[in-house]
Amino acid sequence: MMNSKMVKYILGWVLFFEAMFMMPSLVAALIYREQEGFALLATILLCAAAGFLLTRTKVQSKTMYAREGFVTVALCWIVLSVFGALPFVISRRIPSFIDALFEVVSGFTTTGSSILTEVESMPKCLLFWRSFTHWIGGMGVLVLVMAVLPLAGGNNMYLMKAESPGPSVGKLVPKVKRTAALLYGMYIGLSVFQLFFLLIGGMPVFDALTTMFGTAGTGGFGVKNDSMAGYSTYLQAVVTVFMILFGVNFNIYYLLLKKRWKSVLGSVEVRTYIGIILVSIILITINISGMFPSVREALHHASFQVGTIITTTGFATTDFNLWPSFSKTILVLLMFIGACAGSTGGGIKVSRIVILFKSIMKELDVIVHPHNIRKIKMDGRVVEHSVIRSVNVFMVSYILIFAVSMLLISIDNFDFTTNFTAVAATMNNIGPGLEMVGPTSNFSMFSNFSKLVLTFDMLVGRLELFPLLILFSRNTWSR
Amino acid sequence: MMNSKMVKYILGWVLFFEAMFMMPSLVAALIYREQEGFALLATILLCAAAGFLLTRTKVQSKTMYAREGFVTVALCWIVLSVFGALPFVISRRIPSFIDALFEVVSGFTTTGSSILTEVESMPKCLLFWRSFTHWIGGMGVLVLVMAVLPLAGGNNMYLMKAESPGPSVGKLVPKVKRTAALLYGMYIGLSVFQLFFLLIGGMPVFDALTTMFGTAGTGGFGVKNDSMAGYSTYLQAVVTVFMILFGVNFNIYYLLLKKRWKSVLGSVEVRTYIGIILVSIILITINISGMFPSVREALHHASFQVGTIITTTGFATTDFNLWPSFSKTILVLLMFIGACAGSTGGGIKVSRIVILFKSIMKELDVIVHPHNIRKIKMDGRVVEHSVIRSVNVFMVSYILIFAVSMLLISIDNFDFTTNFTAVAATMNNIGPGLEMVGPTSNFSMFSNFSKLVLTFDMLVGRLELFPLLILFSRNTWSR
Repeated sequence: MMNSKMVKYILGWVLFFEAMFMMPSLVAALIYREQEGFALLATILLCAAAGFLLTRTKVQSKTMYAREGFVTVALCWIVLSVFGALPFVISRRIPSFIDALFEVVSGFTTTGSSILTEVESMPKCLLFWRSFTHWIGGMGVLVLVMAVLPLAGGNNMYLMKAESPGPSVGKLVPKVKRTAALLYGMYIGLSVFQLFFLLIGGMPVFDALTTMFGTAGTGGFGVKNDSMAGYSTYLQAVVTVFMILFGVNFNIYYLLLKKRWKSVLGSVEVRTYIGIILVSIILITINISGMFPSVREALHHASFQVGTIITTTGFATTDFNLWPSFSKTILVLLMFIGACAGSTGGGIKVSRIVILFKSIMKELDVIVHPHNIRKIKMDGRVVEHSVIRSVNVFMVSYILIFAVSMLLISIDNFDFTTNFTAVAATMNNIGPGLEMVGPTSNFSMFSNFSKLVLTFDMLVGRLELFPLLILFSRNTWSR
Repeated sequence: MMNSKMVKYILGWVLFFEAMFMMPSLVAALIYREQEGFALLATILLCAAAGFLLTRTKVQSKTMYAREGFVTVALCWIVLSVFGALPFVISRRIPSFIDALFEVVSGFTTTGSSILTEVESMPKCLLFWRSFTHWIGGMGVLVLVMAVLPLAGGNNMYLMKAESPGPSVGKLVPKVKRTAALLYGMYIGLSVFQLFFLLIGGMPVFDALTTMFGTAGTGGFGVKNDSMAGYSTYLQAVVTVFMILFGVNFNIYYLLLKKRWKSVLGSVEVRTYIGIILVSIILITINISGMFPSVREALHHASFQVGTIITTTGFATTDFNLWPSFSKTILVLLMFIGACAGSTGGGIKVSRIVILFKSIMKELDVIVHPHNIRKIKMDGRVVEHSVIRSVNVFMVSYILIFAVSMLLISIDNFDFTTNFTAVAATMNNIGPGLEMVGPTSNFSMFSNFSKLVLTFDMLVGRLELFPLLILFSRNTWSR
């Protein structure tokens, strides 16, 4: 039987947190004297009221199993998005609820796909909220709840497992609560660093904050119609470096703090991640060098675009939809690879790709030497059978959801490349795709039905499929 | 250590068979008094000479393990294709060896993609050879060799496993030799049936024979520039029905002959296959009904195109590249699903899709009920762990080869849809894709490099990845 009381209780706390998260945007409304602040205030009060009602539930048992973990995470993200969309709807700045939901889910899931045809006319307080959702969604809401709330027992490990990206979530320290706090600590630290580098580059404070939110969460919402194209080369370079840094497994930063250099340098995932980035940058630079006045400039744009796509951020400095097919194909492949597990980035994740690649090698080995039983290892440790199985099922479910989504949005009758990259850009939490959803375009032309499909894809991608599949599986709700 | 002598010996026999396979085309050259017959004759003599040299090898041990099985199959198909391309090169009808190789590999692998811009000016004897390669490749050359040659021991099961499509190859009867003979018997029987129905529909003998070769092998080479569009509705309907029949697992026909009705009706793969076909036909008919004068006509073309794509045949009656996005997306998805295992069709195969789908369900069940250990079953029997693992590795290797192929051919700078569907059409052995490789186009615009990549994809798809991967794996050739 589902422990629904505990689920409700956590949902209530998440709403309290959401009310708190909206405060800075309210402050922005006050500073810029924008009347949309009232919409924010109304939503804050609504969240608090709903949170109050839900946390009054008497929780008899704090026991949570995997099932409760997945269901809680799925429900929390849905509730968070529904309430998060209200300021846009109440202020009539995005009058359609489905559009507002798309935009906010795109924010929380750190996708960065937008239905807005232009952003500069939006009130600053709403732009601030929109970008801040990236920062919240990047490290995860429940990770923060766990860092702060006293949830008894080690069972809330399931919450973390369900919300954190990657094939197997390792705790940094034995206690989940302390692990969550450490993760948020490093996240805040790295964010402050970036803010500093942006500010000394002369970026206005508002732009610097929102850009940092978009980079840290690997989200990609900008506050300018041309995304990052109008900023200086220095600022673009800072964003490039920090995008790539936020795409690294946060365990690595913990190991760095602990000065375990050997483990840092030995990490197969990080080495593969850096390797893929370097090779992609070199290939694209060669391919596009004719389009730019100097190789240096080609290298700059290639680096930015590779960084923005592999980390699934989605900022743009140039319209890569106009690049040659070879470069575009590399970018599309990077969309699927994604960042490291345990980072704020999306996609399939480098560690899954590594495990899958090793499983091919192992299978070929088994055929050639049938008596040679070898285990798949990573970073010197055996990858457990359940992890490999789960990675395989992840891939298959991923393909299935991808195919069904493409089929459903193709009813709108746009071209194949638009449909394919629209699903790729949302499921991998990137933002822009190619053709009609390219970096200079947006998702506004899709029907409401397709927008709902793509909204689902953003959530299912951010939560790595299983939480939503389990939420909607009949089996979960039967006794 | 590799038993190379045995590999050479089988290669030699395969060349003898190829010489024999070319005889009917030589007869066609005599009937139509075409001078290209000399090119065929020269190739026949070359095959016989090479076969003679190779079969003179003294085979000390007939022992073959999985490794030898995979390597033999891969090498045989390569040798078969290289010699099969010679009549086109020698007669200067396809002067470029790479083009001729593409065409013949497309034939043997039952793909049906062509580099010819028009076929009606080709000599009939070469068209006959081109279509006949479909028929040979459909059931497989080594299956035929096994049916005829006395290869000792049960170890030649590995040859059959490596050449026959599907996740797990079951023998119909305990003896491999008799199984192979039964398979070819049923194949010939069904082919003769189709020929009969085509002839009573008034199709000329030459057209009927080549159409039958293309249908039986689920290949798709036509002898008319407009493929099947010019034939009567009756003939198109006959082809539709037989395409679907040749896409069925041949075990089913054996069970039918043995009157085991219950097993036939209970087959999950065949039921899924028929279900997918019916649903696709209905959805496409609704979607395209406005484009045709009557629903009946829409249904006719929807059925033909669904049949031609899911069975990976590739004939066309209409330019489906002009259909709405929704119908095109269904066809692209069918490209990947493919026909049943143990049929002459390509693609991922319905049984793999079923196993993968069941593995998702099982994983969700494990999360919700961790103590409920359930095995994956199909047709009432437990699917062995090694089969599931191999299906998963198949999928991952498939995606990897697909991605690398797309990247390599994107150097030619064609659009994303063309590149994506060109790889899909060749790897799944279908024939046409969308846009520049659509049903009214061909593959002639690709560079030689891309043609070689796509040729590799056709072979790797027909042999279901592992034989070629093992042939090119360093591990295979080390001690």
